[in-house]
Amino acid sequence: MCRFTLYLGPPIRLESLLIDPSHSLILQSFHASEREEPLNGDGFGVGWYAPDQHQKPALFRSITPAWNNANLRSLASVVSSPCVMAHVRAASPGMAVSEANCHPFQHDRYLFMHNGSIGSFRSIRRKFISELGEEAFDSIRGSTDSEHLFAAFIDDLRSASLEDEHVLARSLNRAVWRVLALVDELGGSAASYLNLAVTDGDRAAACRFANDPGRKPESLYVIERELYQPAWKGSPGRRRDERSTSFVVSSERLTDDVTWKAVEPNHMVSICRDGSAHVFAMRPEGLVATPRGAVDGQPYSRSGSQT
Amino acid sequence: MCRFTLYLGPPIRLESLLIDPSHSLILQSFHASEREEPLNGDGFGVGWYAPDQHQKPALFRSITPAWNNANLRSLASVVSSPCVMAHVRAASPGMAVSEANCHPFQHDRYLFMHNGSIGSFRSIRRKFISELGEEAFDSIRGSTDSEHLFAAFIDDLRSASLEDEHVLARSLNRAVWRVLALVDELGGSAASYLNLAVTDGDRAAACRFANDPGRKPESLYVIERELYQPAWKGSPGRRRDERSTSFVVSSERLTDDVTWKAVEPNHMVSICRDGSAHVFAMRPEGLVATPRGAVDGQPYSRSGSQT
Amino acid sequence: MCRFTLYLGPPIRLESLLIDPSHSLILQSFHASEREEPLNGDGFGVGWYAPDQHQKPALFRSITPAWNNANLRSLASVVSSPCVMAHVRAASPGMAVSEANCHPFQHDRYLFMHNGSIGSFRSIRRKFISELGEEAFDSIRGSTDSEHLFAAFIDDLRSASLEDEHVLARSLNRAVWRVLALVDELGGSAASYLNLAVTDGDRAAACRFANDPGRKPESLYVIERELYQPAWKGSPGRRRDERSTSFVVSSERLTDDVTWKAVEPNHMVSICRDGSAHVFAMRPEGLVATPRGAVDGQPYSRSGSQT
Amino acid sequence: MCRFTLYLGPPIRLESLLIDPSHSLILQSFHASEREEPLNGDGFGVGWYAPDQHQKPALFRSITPAWNNANLRSLASVVSSPCVMAHVRAASPGMAVSEANCHPFQHDRYLFMHNGSIGSFRSIRRKFISELGEEAFDSIRGSTDSEHLFAAFIDDLRSASLEDEHVLARSLNRAVWRVLALVDELGGSAASYLNLAVTDGDRAAACRFANDPGRKPESLYVIERELYQPAWKGSPGRRRDERSTSFVVSSERLTDDVTWKAVEPNHMVSICRDGSAHVFAMRPEGLVATPRGAVDGQPYSRSGSQT
Repeated sequence: MCRFTLYLGPPIRLESLLIDPSHSLILQSFHASEREEPLNGDGFGVGWYAPDQHQKPALFRSITPAWNNANLRSLASVVSSPCVMAHVRAASPGMAVSEANCHPFQHDRYLFMHNGSIGSFRSIRRKFISELGEEAFDSIRGSTDSEHLFAAFIDDLRSASLEDEHVLARSLNRAVWRVLALVDELGGSAASYLNLAVTDGDRAAACRFANDPGRKPESLYVIERELYQPAWKGSPGRRRDERSTSFVVSSERLTDDVTWKAVEPNHMVSICRDGSAHVFAMRPEGLVATPRGAVDGQPYSRSGSQT
Repeated sequence: MCRFTLYLGPPIRLESLLIDPSHSLILQSFHASEREEPLNGDGFGVGWYAPDQHQKPALFRSITPAWNNANLRSLASVVSSPCVMAHVRAASPGMAVSEANCHPFQHDRYLFMHNGSIGSFRSIRRKFISELGEEAFDSIRGSTDSEHLFAAFIDDLRSASLEDEHVLARSLNRAVWRVLALVDELGGSAASYLNLAVTDGDRAAACRFANDPGRKPESLYVIERELYQPAWKGSPGRRRDERSTSFVVSSERLTDDVTWKAVEPNHMVSICRDGSAHVFAMRPEGLVATPRGAVDGQPYSRSGSQT
Repeated sequence: MCRFTLYLGPPIRLESLLIDPSHSLILQSFHASEREEPLNGDGFGVGWYAPDQHQKPALFRSITPAWNNANLRSLASVVSSPCVMAHVRAASPGMAVSEANCHPFQHDRYLFMHNGSIGSFRSIRRKFISELGEEAFDSIRGSTDSEHLFAAFIDDLRSASLEDEHVLARSLNRAVWRVLALVDELGGSAASYLNLAVTDGDRAAACRFANDPGRKPESLYVIERELYQPAWKGSPGRRRDERSTSFVVSSERLTDDVTWKAVEPNHMVSICRDGSAHVFAMRPEGLVATPRGAVDGQPYSRSGSQT
Repeated sequence: MCRFTLYLGPPIRLESLLIDPSHSLILQSFHASEREEPLNGDGFGVGWYAPDQHQKPALFRSITPAWNNANLRSLASVVSSPCVMAHVRAASPGMAVSEANCHPFQHDRYLFMHNGSIGSFRSIRRKFISELGEEAFDSIRGSTDSEHLFAAFIDDLRSASLEDEHVLARSLNRAVWRVLALVDELGGSAASYLNLAVTDGDRAAACRFANDPGRKPESLYVIERELYQPAWKGSPGRRRDERSTSFVVSSERLTDDVTWKAVEPNHMVSICRDGSAHVFAMRPEGLVATPRGAVDGQPYSRSGSQT
């Protein structure tokens, strides 16, 4: 079912995010603790933006496990970035292991990743594809349900206002419900698990979602720091125009820090250019602001209990 | 544009077919001589059937070049088979290099490979997919035009009579014209190059085809031997129930043997269970027997001149 | 610390040995049950001999995990062999993951694999290398302690009598003690774990060994069957000249069969051409026959208790 | 025999160096023009230093060809660096293709690469290894002659003065002659081809060398630019503390620029921290300054004629 980590903030050395933390994503590639099966060894991927150029991210993906990849370790010790996505994969049965199927997926300036699965995906795939616009259809390179969901997001974004600070969150929410409607129609309403994250390098959205009456969504946490690095090591100095706050969204908490908050089920976190973050409930008719609308230091859900 | 080799006959050690010949397919992976660009280094694949079991072939594919793959070399020195397909790839621009995109492709007991390209494939892909039957649609794992053409073959085969000795050839011909009709409709009649081979382990079909007024099809040769091995080394003895003749169909001649014959443009070779081979002209309305219907030792086209 | 399986007997389809059993080696690649860490995901290897040719084995090794390798699964469903070695790797810290470091290792007609580690290997490596004969020195391609131990075996074999039915076992025992003497001299007598297997395609030797006062050796089991296949599926019929008994030596029991026997600590199993197997205690001065000299159906150690 | 490129100067986007030039190293991976065989497809490697941290370089190596590696292309479009080494490999016969055997090699803050071969390397390897210091011996991870030569360099550097601006050049020269003395002693004075490059992120040395009476060394060129980028695209602005000159040393000229100069046979280029470059003749007794000691804009050898 995979694990992922998203970072947005002042430039951070990749190893400070992915390797150094006591419960880092690299560790989760073989010792994940909040899913039944601790192993996420079917490849991995890291996407990041250069500090001075957010128009196009770099993508490094491999079908070998994250824990023993020498290139990843070397890259991570040198590269710094203000916006990073990383993903370790546990391939669903029948989904091939290939670089094209490794997350994150990239299209133009967007990166996307998924932890979970679309219910009865094979039943809906043909109709789903036939309804995509040209650009979204052409963007699909692999065979995962995840990449198809990304295509639905790309499709939606084409008619959305990029000026809207929450445009990523809104398009992601619409893509989710569009897919779920198809599963209701053709896939016997099989349950879907949709922990998702998307970014354009400047802002990001991530959600924790499932529509399985018998099971909670996969775990998802968020943490905000005034300046993330002091607790960790080795990132270069901050420049004037850089954010002073940082956010990490992660399938599992990377550290023992008590300020990690569990994202509530079926809620979406939207992180804006100005360094603020907002939480919305995900509804078919759109995102709905919550009373605790911002991630504001008041844990809306204690770590330890995921509710 | 790739190079390929097909073998059908008494069990042959893979290295006798793929490595030992003076102009072997492994050599063609970096020194092809009948295409402008001599390099076919974007991965390779070998498919073969066990001597005692033709229900399902083995497939070994890799994104590394054939010339330096230690596993291929080791396998080839030990494995013997009565039916082998091998392919070295030169990826078309924009086609990803992945194992899923390496030839041969396999579905059930069938293996398929392609040297060439479908004209304006991106223009026809959506409609093409929408018209496929379920099984054929589901069989597609990668993103190449070649694999889509294989799906059209699979689709056609479902309504064909498997008793017909030339069923592979006939289905392949229909798949070709079905795709070309789509290119005429949506792809501005761009030229296609379709050197194809398909087998079920017992019989095979291979064609040399192009509809480019300004250019001949890619090269394709066939050779028939009473018993193939004597000229080469190391294959195990023949059993009673085995063929006494062998055929090799290959993009380029593997040896200096003067009995290699060029397949005529837009013709199809059909190799039957009884060890006979027949040549047909490929027409939209079906295969048409030629006066020289069988590959009978009378070169219908001198090697050296490809006409 | 790795897991491995060795087979010697009538030709068996690889999947019957490696995939079908309820606790197969493929399963052990992520769910090993007799070591603390269940994961053996740092690559794998399979070596096997053709039924008709034991002069040189085939070797297929990969740095990707065994559980998701499509080539392995395809190969295993088609290839049959009378002698198979397979290994899933958990790389020791500091040992690189590369095909050259995957087991089994091959030299001439010999295959070798190891589960464990040589104590303080870095301390002895230089002297060890300097004392090897030319052939053994040149045979080393990677950087593992395991391959160096294989080189010591190769070295010893050069002066041994290949006529001796137990020559593999004797040379393996001498190689072990030669290495241990060096560890005593230069490596502070650090503990070594040496579960080893070697074969020439016709006969084999495997040992379960450790010299750690505080810990037993890694687990190792052996099973003998009159004809192995009936319990499993799909291997081709037996020919007249083939063995009627089969042996499997494996780090963990592959099935619930109660006749699996634990190899006693610091003992060596030697399997002969005539289908008999013998057990020896490993002593610095040589192998010593045990009262229960043969693997004879009398479990010399009950499965469940590993003593 | 490989091709390589070294860059030292203001930060440059990797793609500006490796992909955009009309005769880029990526192009040379399949269309090298100054060696008989145009193919360098046995893996590649790129090493680079972060703009703000020269203590340890990043290394990205792969056994797939450079021309089709999606990770390389993506990385190169985002990463910038003031010091870059890149290498495309044509493996010598018998040398395995593995990441550990891909150049550049890294040890501490040093990167090293080689185009050529040590004469009769197998004859000298044992004695060579036995004479290395501990650190150098332990640094060897693969099996190439090249990496062993790097170890000789590391060994020499331990007793050299790092304050000396030409320390890399001097240690490299001594390593060369130490190896050649061994070849004279044990390898029948077989010819060696030693085009080498080494850097510590701040300064670099590169040589063009052969001792084959019948053949010139492999080609090697150098170019100096006041500011390299204007001719190419996309690198970020220069900071105050950055070099104003840039150097590229390359097996083949990357562009049509007429100021590329061929390095003279058996000469060494040493590039200093202050942005100056000096040329020395390589003698067993040490480097000897040449009348044209600096690379000063006066071509000491016209491109086109390599003398």
